[in-house]
Amino acid sequence: MKTVLCLSLLFFMTQTALSQTLTVHSPGHINAVTFILDDGVPFYEVNRLGTPVIQQSAMGFELQNQPALKDGFAILETEETTFDETWTQVWGEKKHIRNHYNELRVSLGEMTNLQRRLDIVFRVFDDGVGFRYEFPEQPNLQAFNIMDELTEFNLTGDHTSWWIGAYQWNRFEYYFEESPVAAIDTVHTPLTMQTTDDLFISIHEAALVDYSTMTLERTNDLTLKANLMPWADGVHVRAETPFVTPWRTIQLADTAGGLITSYLILNLNEPNKIEDTSWIEPSKYVGIWWEMHLDKSTWGTGERHGATTENAKRYIDFAAEHGFEHVLVEGWNIGWDENWYESGAVFSFTEPVDGFDLEGVAAYALERGTRLMGHHETSASIISYEEQMEDAFALYERLGVRAVKTGYVGHGQEIFWLDENGEKQFEWHHGQHMVRHHQEVVELAARHKISLNVHEGVKDTGLRRTWPNLMTREVAKGQEYNAWGQAGGNPPSHTLILPFTRNLAGPFDYTPGVLDLHFDDYRPYNRVKSTLAKELALYVVIYSPLHMAADLPQNYESNMEAFLFIKDVPVDWYDTQVLHSSIGNYITIVRKDRNSEDWYLGSITNEKGRLLEAPLSFLDPGKIYIAEIYRDGTFADWEDNPYDLEIVTKEVNSQTILPLRLATSGGQAIRFRPKN
Amino acid sequence: MKTVLCLSLLFFMTQTALSQTLTVHSPGHINAVTFILDDGVPFYEVNRLGTPVIQQSAMGFELQNQPALKDGFAILETEETTFDETWTQVWGEKKHIRNHYNELRVSLGEMTNLQRRLDIVFRVFDDGVGFRYEFPEQPNLQAFNIMDELTEFNLTGDHTSWWIGAYQWNRFEYYFEESPVAAIDTVHTPLTMQTTDDLFISIHEAALVDYSTMTLERTNDLTLKANLMPWADGVHVRAETPFVTPWRTIQLADTAGGLITSYLILNLNEPNKIEDTSWIEPSKYVGIWWEMHLDKSTWGTGERHGATTENAKRYIDFAAEHGFEHVLVEGWNIGWDENWYESGAVFSFTEPVDGFDLEGVAAYALERGTRLMGHHETSASIISYEEQMEDAFALYERLGVRAVKTGYVGHGQEIFWLDENGEKQFEWHHGQHMVRHHQEVVELAARHKISLNVHEGVKDTGLRRTWPNLMTREVAKGQEYNAWGQAGGNPPSHTLILPFTRNLAGPFDYTPGVLDLHFDDYRPYNRVKSTLAKELALYVVIYSPLHMAADLPQNYESNMEAFLFIKDVPVDWYDTQVLHSSIGNYITIVRKDRNSEDWYLGSITNEKGRLLEAPLSFLDPGKIYIAEIYRDGTFADWEDNPYDLEIVTKEVNSQTILPLRLATSGGQAIRFRPKN
Repeated sequence: MKTVLCLSLLFFMTQTALSQTLTVHSPGHINAVTFILDDGVPFYEVNRLGTPVIQQSAMGFELQNQPALKDGFAILETEETTFDETWTQVWGEKKHIRNHYNELRVSLGEMTNLQRRLDIVFRVFDDGVGFRYEFPEQPNLQAFNIMDELTEFNLTGDHTSWWIGAYQWNRFEYYFEESPVAAIDTVHTPLTMQTTDDLFISIHEAALVDYSTMTLERTNDLTLKANLMPWADGVHVRAETPFVTPWRTIQLADTAGGLITSYLILNLNEPNKIEDTSWIEPSKYVGIWWEMHLDKSTWGTGERHGATTENAKRYIDFAAEHGFEHVLVEGWNIGWDENWYESGAVFSFTEPVDGFDLEGVAAYALERGTRLMGHHETSASIISYEEQMEDAFALYERLGVRAVKTGYVGHGQEIFWLDENGEKQFEWHHGQHMVRHHQEVVELAARHKISLNVHEGVKDTGLRRTWPNLMTREVAKGQEYNAWGQAGGNPPSHTLILPFTRNLAGPFDYTPGVLDLHFDDYRPYNRVKSTLAKELALYVVIYSPLHMAADLPQNYESNMEAFLFIKDVPVDWYDTQVLHSSIGNYITIVRKDRNSEDWYLGSITNEKGRLLEAPLSFLDPGKIYIAEIYRDGTFADWEDNPYDLEIVTKEVNSQTILPLRLATSGGQAIRFRPKN
Repeated sequence: MKTVLCLSLLFFMTQTALSQTLTVHSPGHINAVTFILDDGVPFYEVNRLGTPVIQQSAMGFELQNQPALKDGFAILETEETTFDETWTQVWGEKKHIRNHYNELRVSLGEMTNLQRRLDIVFRVFDDGVGFRYEFPEQPNLQAFNIMDELTEFNLTGDHTSWWIGAYQWNRFEYYFEESPVAAIDTVHTPLTMQTTDDLFISIHEAALVDYSTMTLERTNDLTLKANLMPWADGVHVRAETPFVTPWRTIQLADTAGGLITSYLILNLNEPNKIEDTSWIEPSKYVGIWWEMHLDKSTWGTGERHGATTENAKRYIDFAAEHGFEHVLVEGWNIGWDENWYESGAVFSFTEPVDGFDLEGVAAYALERGTRLMGHHETSASIISYEEQMEDAFALYERLGVRAVKTGYVGHGQEIFWLDENGEKQFEWHHGQHMVRHHQEVVELAARHKISLNVHEGVKDTGLRRTWPNLMTREVAKGQEYNAWGQAGGNPPSHTLILPFTRNLAGPFDYTPGVLDLHFDDYRPYNRVKSTLAKELALYVVIYSPLHMAADLPQNYESNMEAFLFIKDVPVDWYDTQVLHSSIGNYITIVRKDRNSEDWYLGSITNEKGRLLEAPLSFLDPGKIYIAEIYRDGTFADWEDNPYDLEIVTKEVNSQTILPLRLATSGGQAIRFRPKN
């Protein structure tokens, strides 16, 4: 599938005394990267269909105790290859993914005595660009420390951008800001932008395996620069040749929805390394969780302890009756009675609290045809967790657990470890130290045939392709902020920004499905700021291969009609299409079930009501489908009348244009099943 | 089809000592109008799905020599009706149009001695709102003069708006400005706006039959007020009861394309008044026109006179060979040798210049199976034209002419007439005087079985429904500005704004189809700023039932492959759908031929290249179509390589998702025909 091309059409090289230029186009001649070596200094730029998208931007590195790798280069060799392959996801939002790009590899060599080497590799796709640095094995560069990555993204205009700030105590858990780029300081990726003439750009990274998280710092009017979350000692990245950086990615689309159906980040990750994936199951779960967020019960022991054997069995019975594959039990282990959030290493990951019959509960779950979902809240005390985690995963494997939710609650910079002198070093949640930790956990979990649902972890960069047991993660503000967030609940627009930002990185355990939108008995100043139909539609709009039905069982039992959609909706898809997209405003996504001929539609809006038209062209032509429609009632309104839900069925076909009437902060969820 | 409703769900009325409120919803409960009588003063407001769109806004009139009709009212009677009918257009962008609304009629009576009466009628559709004032026959209001219409549109935010300024010398022929509403002074309608959360609003009017054109004046931060183009004596409207105003229209859609497929303005016009419409033919034409704009030939006589018998016969031969229904000949009549633009009444509308054999040319056209298209340039000298026009249309009828292009070139306020004292009165192009004139012409033309193509006329308000011989008009900057416009040609974005503004009013004789994009021999500083594919796509994007193939015959003869699309494309449609829409940026429209099973697609972009995906769901399911694709070549670019056109054919079906790759200022034109 990989062939070396000599086509001059695809590959131009010009040379003057001082400047060399190489251009490579995407297979459909949509995007182009130009590499420039100007007087020994490397730069790149990106064009799309003849229009600049990234203007000439710097590349290179500052290193510790040795000269920078940023100038004095000559081009030793260049190679262009083309690659075209369609691969199959173990699970995901689309079964078959085409990975089609033209690659340009530029091997640079220093013209000084050191003669160090650096390769830069560009992959140019029709949906964007990825590039990374490769440090080959070489005599004058073995172990080395990166003090700064100089990669720039020099934008062409003051685009509207959606972002969360980096270097903050609450990690990634902030509401997205919408502002011109010029108002940005330092932000996390994916950073999604919309130009005044409606080009959509998202900058992120792929395959973050052993490196520091890249944030973006605005260093100049419209220039963003890679800013790596440093180690405690100021080093940005510890490396040893041969060494490769993550891919820096620039996704480009002419509609906001085009970013969602771009699989560039997955394509830039390594293929699946897990041979037997039969134990990796996209699935839904319930659990003892929302009741703690409501303060109906507690994580700690005592009268209101949530994780009692009896309560766990009640959830297991509910899961068994309604077909949920896992039952999460939080607060089951020793440590929650301590001041765990402040004091760190208090948790046991193998010992249940007195009175919680871990073995019995796990066995009861298996007996009833469901499974316990494990829970490891580390309180970001990594040393303590790393000491116990081998035993912890072994225990869960023995108990028949197939999925573990991990947690890393703790301030952004409170991960600590001991250096060679036994001194405590505080690390950022998203520095190289933690990236390595998470990689270790995913490989350990794989050996125990356990899938992960990581909360407060590092952002997703597509590693799920390589390690499909790394199923989902949080790493954004989820449902729980509706219970106790200071804003009284997530604003109606929050879930209208997530699909275009957080979800571009990968699956998100948002934990939707709270049907009791007010909880005055527990949290009178908070609520879910949406209609019932919108809450259902989130199962389709937000992709996760593990989706929770987050509400209390009694709230489903009293609303079985709406609950039916949550029971029906799959979490593993054959295909995904975006019908409507406007960042922060509205979105309509349709997805085809991977295991049947059914399609599902989710459409949601912000605080503004909408009337959208959905052509059902994705349906098989000539077939009649029954549409089971869960929609906002005529008088639905998120503030005053959020429970007004109409459930109707209707015959439709691929020619039908279905009006989607969405109330304020409303939605619509539809299952389409073939009539015969 | 009209029934009086007493449903309380649709009609609320509350009453306090001082304030009465009545609300009527659209049939699908999407839009709502609330009428408020506050201490005798009438107001209205508009909501959409629970969100305000137009806040409380004033209504009423200042009158001449009598008290205003704006306060002191009581509600005498109210009536709510519902209406649902599907009617058939004689020709148009969609054959069957549903007219479905709920109507609220509020009959107001003055509580003073005068006891004057005023009805306000609201029609609330799912795609917007129309309302008008009706002055019933009554003793104390017979002939009267309106000095100001007080109707306000009080917006909810500083929306992005696209507009052209009113009261300018060049009438409607300006490039659209894009600005926040707060930067508006006084502008023409349609005024199209986009809110920050992507609601699209267009304010215009329907059924302007005997009234002054409404412009919109910003009177306050976010308040627009009706500003009527006055008569020379300052009167805004001369009226006599019973009298009705045009409808004030507010179209609402959640996508920009939704405005294009809204037929609210047509629905608010009266049904067709022409019984036998067999002589009204949607058709294409060529003519002696572009060569004058290039300055290759002249309107006036002399060596380079364009309208020679020989030249006309050459165009007739070309039209006959390629199936064009009309041949326009400009400069055929006496008057062009005068200083006609400045001095006014110099044209004869019945006498050809020496040497032009009008009768012979018209007969030759008929013989060859085509027809002469008449031409009446009035130079805005209305008295002179009105004196001759009966004879002029009779002449054309006798010669077998079925369509006449009229022209009203002249500064905005240079239409003049003589008052009862024989004094010259200068009138605005768009005041009530000219509205009346145009109405007279259309009725006269109908009596002679002639269709009209009006240039420099009054803006369209949907009268084509009532008078389908009023086929198309210009009233915007068209193709000719590419020949001599001071900007060197229309900017690439111009045709990306027109579909969302000018074209919302009605059909537009843009005269596309210039394939020779540079004309260095004639106009070296001007050109058509687009690719060849974009020029073809305009035939689908811009709707007109009379479309010109504007270029010189020799430029078609040397590019027969591209010309084939112009020959094939219909001008009368069964259906229209908008696949992509972003105002000023890009648009994709598909239309189904009214007389075959073929579909046509036109997609164009501004100066930015695009990659759009078109699901072909509009095609009949299960059928295979041949797509004849006219697209930008791989290296097409409007500036450097505009002629790079690829013509390919491809089998597609309703499940195909077709990538549309558009070069900078590029486009794509496709004919889809069933394979069997």
